[in-house]
Amino acid sequence: MSRIYNFNAGPAVLPLEVLEEARDQFVEYQNSGMSIMESSHRGKEYDAIHAEAIANYKKLFNCSDDYAICLIAGGASMQFAMAPLNLLGAGQTADYINSGAWASKALKEAQHVGKVSVAADTSKEIPTRVPGVQDLKLTKGAAYVHITSNETISGAQWKVFPKTESPLVADMSSDVLSRPIDAGQFGLIYAGAQKNLGPSGIALVVIRKDLAERAAANVPTILKYKTFIDENSLYNTPPCFSIYIMMLFSRWMLKMGLENLYRRNRDKAAKIYTAIDGSGFYKGTAVKECRSDMNITFRLPNEALEEQFVKEASKQGMKGLKGHRSVGGIRASIYNAFPPEGVDALVAFMRAFENKNG
Amino acid sequence: MSRIYNFNAGPAVLPLEVLEEARDQFVEYQNSGMSIMESSHRGKEYDAIHAEAIANYKKLFNCSDDYAICLIAGGASMQFAMAPLNLLGAGQTADYINSGAWASKALKEAQHVGKVSVAADTSKEIPTRVPGVQDLKLTKGAAYVHITSNETISGAQWKVFPKTESPLVADMSSDVLSRPIDAGQFGLIYAGAQKNLGPSGIALVVIRKDLAERAAANVPTILKYKTFIDENSLYNTPPCFSIYIMMLFSRWMLKMGLENLYRRNRDKAAKIYTAIDGSGFYKGTAVKECRSDMNITFRLPNEALEEQFVKEASKQGMKGLKGHRSVGGIRASIYNAFPPEGVDALVAFMRAFENKNG
Repeated sequence: MSRIYNFNAGPAVLPLEVLEEARDQFVEYQNSGMSIMESSHRGKEYDAIHAEAIANYKKLFNCSDDYAICLIAGGASMQFAMAPLNLLGAGQTADYINSGAWASKALKEAQHVGKVSVAADTSKEIPTRVPGVQDLKLTKGAAYVHITSNETISGAQWKVFPKTESPLVADMSSDVLSRPIDAGQFGLIYAGAQKNLGPSGIALVVIRKDLAERAAANVPTILKYKTFIDENSLYNTPPCFSIYIMMLFSRWMLKMGLENLYRRNRDKAAKIYTAIDGSGFYKGTAVKECRSDMNITFRLPNEALEEQFVKEASKQGMKGLKGHRSVGGIRASIYNAFPPEGVDALVAFMRAFENKNG
Repeated sequence: MSRIYNFNAGPAVLPLEVLEEARDQFVEYQNSGMSIMESSHRGKEYDAIHAEAIANYKKLFNCSDDYAICLIAGGASMQFAMAPLNLLGAGQTADYINSGAWASKALKEAQHVGKVSVAADTSKEIPTRVPGVQDLKLTKGAAYVHITSNETISGAQWKVFPKTESPLVADMSSDVLSRPIDAGQFGLIYAGAQKNLGPSGIALVVIRKDLAERAAANVPTILKYKTFIDENSLYNTPPCFSIYIMMLFSRWMLKMGLENLYRRNRDKAAKIYTAIDGSGFYKGTAVKECRSDMNITFRLPNEALEEQFVKEASKQGMKGLKGHRSVGGIRASIYNAFPPEGVDALVAFMRAFENKNG
């Protein structure tokens, strides 16, 4: 079998050239006589990888020296805890915008730590959407405002970020670096790597350094952003191999160019949305102005047809199209590394499937 | 260049056949049309890996159904926090045995969480050693007793574990599964994977399930052992690729047999210790009855010779022999996957070096 079109929501498709380079270097890295997986995290081979990963991500976010890039084991679920543990002081309130399943999880974890105010809630709305900037009930003097830039399950995405007085904290797991953003508008950005950046088990964090000073003394060392900033993410042994893949992925993004990737992502998404809108058969689940460029969610007339759709697509080499088990339907996740030809194949399949079953 | 002898303390040497299998499957896993790094953590390919990893480690620890195997992102440094967050209730005391640099770190993190009593302290002694079982001042009704089974930096190892009334908690990062142990003697065992189990960025945890019930409600979900037990380490997206390597490594250990590995490890260590003891040139840094089978630490007559030793060994394809930056000297880390021929090469080199410089 050859390489299929991988619509998985995460872990997700990686650039083929990243995989091939990692494979070629896998047993012996750059004539060092060992795998990079066996190399010391204080040695020169890994050191160069670590430094380049951090430098490349700094470049991709185009952020000033007021910000640090941290590479932290665990995914967004760990960041749901770390963000409030570091940023939400005793007696303070954090504003959370509840836009769906992932925002709800972040919110719940913050409630374990301190006081939370829900600034808006669209989590139960159908069709799905994120709140409008004008709908937010923000708390004066809030410790921070938390948003989820893209809801992977519902397929709703923030197109314009709110300008907030309190630091803006964003879970960007499913659309990080899929478009240029102004990092200076955020206090903290975090993203599990397994969608747009690399393998699962690691998160990328972009933090305005002064915010890391807020953490109470009794927060465990390994959960303090300050530890990662002060030690350049080398306080303990980092997930070296995962960072190696993230470094290769960052090279690929720099080569492609973020503006080009953004254009490519929008074109990919538009092709599928056009196919949906031009049919009476498929129905998008998110309101138009919030439609995600990363996770395209839609329904067919009934669940039996949805099941058949997923099955037939799979036979034609298009995998991972089943919607999240909590909501059903179809979800086509088309992250940075997803090739445009895969979208063309899906659109052609959608037309043929509709002709046969519509 | 060909494969060198890798004496790194961690990340450390992996079995060559594990690396070669992972390389061969790297771009496309078992004709699935994608890398295992791109596969869904809820899909059948990864599911089989996850289940086998957990089953194999359960077999290797030979533990009853009262115990669970958990695979948790982050290394031992994360466990330094998780252990007290889960097991040390308000008003309780945890006993910590301070046997060196790593025990000190574990102890310090527990102090962030609750009350700690130091049951013995050999951390500043030279020659280095772990306390005798008879030297422990244990607290009646302690929440648990924490030990570090092998001090990676000083090269001192527990040979017999204390029998304690309170649950025994062990950081086994640097000697886990290097010898058969009675898991039933422990309440909690944890180990960063990057020495004896796989890549860095993940920890193996063996926990008596009832202990996981202790955690306070406000401990973040992702930091509760109960979350990992209840969800079979699939509450969130786990570090899938790292677990894949750990699964392959567990297969290798089962094939080798734990008793055989133990014998092999002792033989490897004995050869180097015999070379040290038979010379007036090399001097072991740990007391004989505590000498580690995993990390062999020794000194030469002066630092200039130590530097020369490391340099010349490296030229002959023996890498990673430099002692930890905090203590200097020489350290030969010879974990499970380290081949006996590498020990023979080192011993021959030690003799030649002594003849030339002694």
